[in-house]
Amino acid sequence: TVNGERMMESLHDTCKWGTGTRWGPGPNDTGMCRLTLTDSDKSVRDWFKAEMEGLGCKVSIDAMGNMFAVRPGQSAGAPTAMGSHLDTQPTGGRYDGILGVHAAVEAMRVVVENGVQTKYPLAVINWTNEEGARFPKSLHGSSVWAGTLPLDKALALTDVADPTLIAGEELARIGYAGEMECSAKANPLAAHFELHIEQGPVLPENKQRIGVVAGGQGYKWYTITIRGRDSHAGTTPFAYRADPMLLAAFFLTRAHEIARTHSGLVTTGIFHAHPGSINTIPNNVSFSLDFRHVSDAGVAAIDKDIKAMAKELETQGDKYKCAIEFEPLFDAPAVQFHPACRDAIRTAAEGSLAAAEVRDIISGAGHDSCATNLHCPTGMIFIPCKDGLSHNPEEYSTPEDCVLGAQVLLDAALLFDQG
Amino acid sequence: TVNGERMMESLHDTCKWGTGTRWGPGPNDTGMCRLTLTDSDKSVRDWFKAEMEGLGCKVSIDAMGNMFAVRPGQSAGAPTAMGSHLDTQPTGGRYDGILGVHAAVEAMRVVVENGVQTKYPLAVINWTNEEGARFPKSLHGSSVWAGTLPLDKALALTDVADPTLIAGEELARIGYAGEMECSAKANPLAAHFELHIEQGPVLPENKQRIGVVAGGQGYKWYTITIRGRDSHAGTTPFAYRADPMLLAAFFLTRAHEIARTHSGLVTTGIFHAHPGSINTIPNNVSFSLDFRHVSDAGVAAIDKDIKAMAKELETQGDKYKCAIEFEPLFDAPAVQFHPACRDAIRTAAEGSLAAAEVRDIISGAGHDSCATNLHCPTGMIFIPCKDGLSHNPEEYSTPEDCVLGAQVLLDAALLFDQG
Ligand SMILES: NC(=O)NCCC(=O)O
Ligand SMILES: NC(=O)NCCC(=O)O
Repeated sequence: TVNGERMMESLHDTCKWGTGTRWGPGPNDTGMCRLTLTDSDKSVRDWFKAEMEGLGCKVSIDAMGNMFAVRPGQSAGAPTAMGSHLDTQPTGGRYDGILGVHAAVEAMRVVVENGVQTKYPLAVINWTNEEGARFPKSLHGSSVWAGTLPLDKALALTDVADPTLIAGEELARIGYAGEMECSAKANPLAAHFELHIEQGPVLPENKQRIGVVAGGQGYKWYTITIRGRDSHAGTTPFAYRADPMLLAAFFLTRAHEIARTHSGLVTTGIFHAHPGSINTIPNNVSFSLDFRHVSDAGVAAIDKDIKAMAKELETQGDKYKCAIEFEPLFDAPAVQFHPACRDAIRTAAEGSLAAAEVRDIISGAGHDSCATNLHCPTGMIFIPCKDGLSHNPEEYSTPEDCVLGAQVLLDAALLFDQG
Repeated sequence: TVNGERMMESLHDTCKWGTGTRWGPGPNDTGMCRLTLTDSDKSVRDWFKAEMEGLGCKVSIDAMGNMFAVRPGQSAGAPTAMGSHLDTQPTGGRYDGILGVHAAVEAMRVVVENGVQTKYPLAVINWTNEEGARFPKSLHGSSVWAGTLPLDKALALTDVADPTLIAGEELARIGYAGEMECSAKANPLAAHFELHIEQGPVLPENKQRIGVVAGGQGYKWYTITIRGRDSHAGTTPFAYRADPMLLAAFFLTRAHEIARTHSGLVTTGIFHAHPGSINTIPNNVSFSLDFRHVSDAGVAAIDKDIKAMAKELETQGDKYKCAIEFEPLFDAPAVQFHPACRDAIRTAAEGSLAAAEVRDIISGAGHDSCATNLHCPTGMIFIPCKDGLSHNPEEYSTPEDCVLGAQVLLDAALLFDQG
């Protein structure tokens, strides 16, 4: 069984790389800001490599910087993998992704320690840029592996805060542009299991401890640019304005209504106004749009309604009009995870808990597992986090829940290997 | 009389310092980006100083970098001044402020050339940071001179795009932190005349050529900060959000309604979202708010209604709420210019034009003249600009109108001196 103390210690210890906002007095009362492909990401990657090599694993790095630590099994073949990510949001916490990797590392420690002979190889994976917070595609490394994103496009992405910084160059700079081909064909997996915090309110509200993830919401990301006409704030009557800021305000309130009508979600996290002067109506504004729905049909309906709304807004204004452009950034279809993995997870969970403490659940967030699911049986385990709060420095799960999740991860992976 | 070709040549020639966006193929078909206290501002200041010294003027620089070029009169005493500003918006044009200084320089050339003996000294002034585009107070230099803004506060202002850059340090860096006290008491003026483009649609729509400015709108600037709770875009139900971006959108649409109801104006030109990640609901957003009304009572009414609206918005949201903060940046009361100056301008204008081509007009924008008006008789002359467009690279006035305006400026200043 999993050594909980050892796991939590290594989790918190490695949070010295990329420590974020402090929110309380305790030694671990800080969030994380470990944006992908930064120096702090390099440091934690170096730790991961050394740790896994110390456990006798072979660590291979692919062209996207995805890291695969593999321990041989009795037979050769594709490994059963446990994976997640070590990058975080700019105001992220200590659990999103990080827990999944540390639980997998701990599972591997237990396997090595006990000389467990798996039928097939066992792997721990650290996927590159799951968050999409710095380079604006989530599941960035796993999507290239899955073949839904071409490598050249993935490497050409630019930093949302500084467009002179390019993903491929940053990857090379930190020394993690690997030689292995990034592809499910060249580097196949037999299965992918991932432990993650729920990041939402369902488990805590229902006082349940393990979620067997049935699937994930679909979502789409755009950059919206509204082009108007820069003019004087004091002398330009409303009727003479093409004010992209005002149109953006209408756009955002209307998009919110549309998502609500469809029981979906919509969020704008990035917003820029140009040229950025108090007494000049902006020439243009651009902002991110993230919308989600549990079904692909729901995502498509929101997409259609938002585009129709934008067309309608474009015709508003008096003498001058704005133009609204949609630049697609990322498109993640809804996902159903594999029955064999779900079964293995439920069996493993019910080995540690009463059935009533385990529930089937839908993921609101995207995960690398959504990408691996296209090529191999995939399953996810959720544990509760406090108030469902995530992408926030105060994100928190109890050590008990983290350790329980790690145990379920280990047990499910071994069940699958044996099955 | 004014030498129009010489004036327009020196205007366009000095636009090589801080050239902005190109909008047409011609040599002068570019806008300006000469933000205050930048290297390009230093270059044009150096030109101004050399040009005025070449005309035999004494150039004094005060602690705000305001530049006073003075030619003695028959009697000592406070000079009759012609002034405006050489700084521009980031997407500004070649006329806003620039024309006013070049017309004054040309007027001084004519006076010198013809050996005109004025009763009192005659001055040309270049005021610092009229625009407020880089350091967020408009009429920055003239307000300190007028005593409505303390010098230390004025020098402590930080750059809207990079808060590590401080106005006082930038002023010293470019070598224009002068030794003269910046104050109307230490350095009084007998009068201040300013030629400016209208920047609005009244003159061009009425096919009139000279506006005798009766007064100016009042306006107020704030930085509004809305604080929410950073959380996950995909897993946080609407009812669990405190989304400052959505609240900002409601705020902006409601502020627009309020300004419209009061026949005022409102504009947001700067907008920042933190931390700026596509799939994180922002922790906070901050934006500029500029609102205006022809009367102080109107400005106060808009202010009151916007604050009440903000209070109401704060109580919205379900489980979590946002807080809305107002940081006052700048407050410019409505202005009535001096009858003696208005009379001088009308007499001068009717010397060149039929009375029907001259109109009384209200300024939508603030001007350094609004500050000088607190201490000395002040008057402003407007000429039309194309489509009323300003704070835009395509801002344009015909050479004929520029030259006419300069002639009226010169004639009005001499009338006042003789009067
Ligand atoms: N789990 C997680 O936070 N993923 C980031 C991708 C997304 O759902 O936006
Ligand atoms: N004339 C002019 O553009 N002044 C800038 C100050 C203002 O915002 O009105």
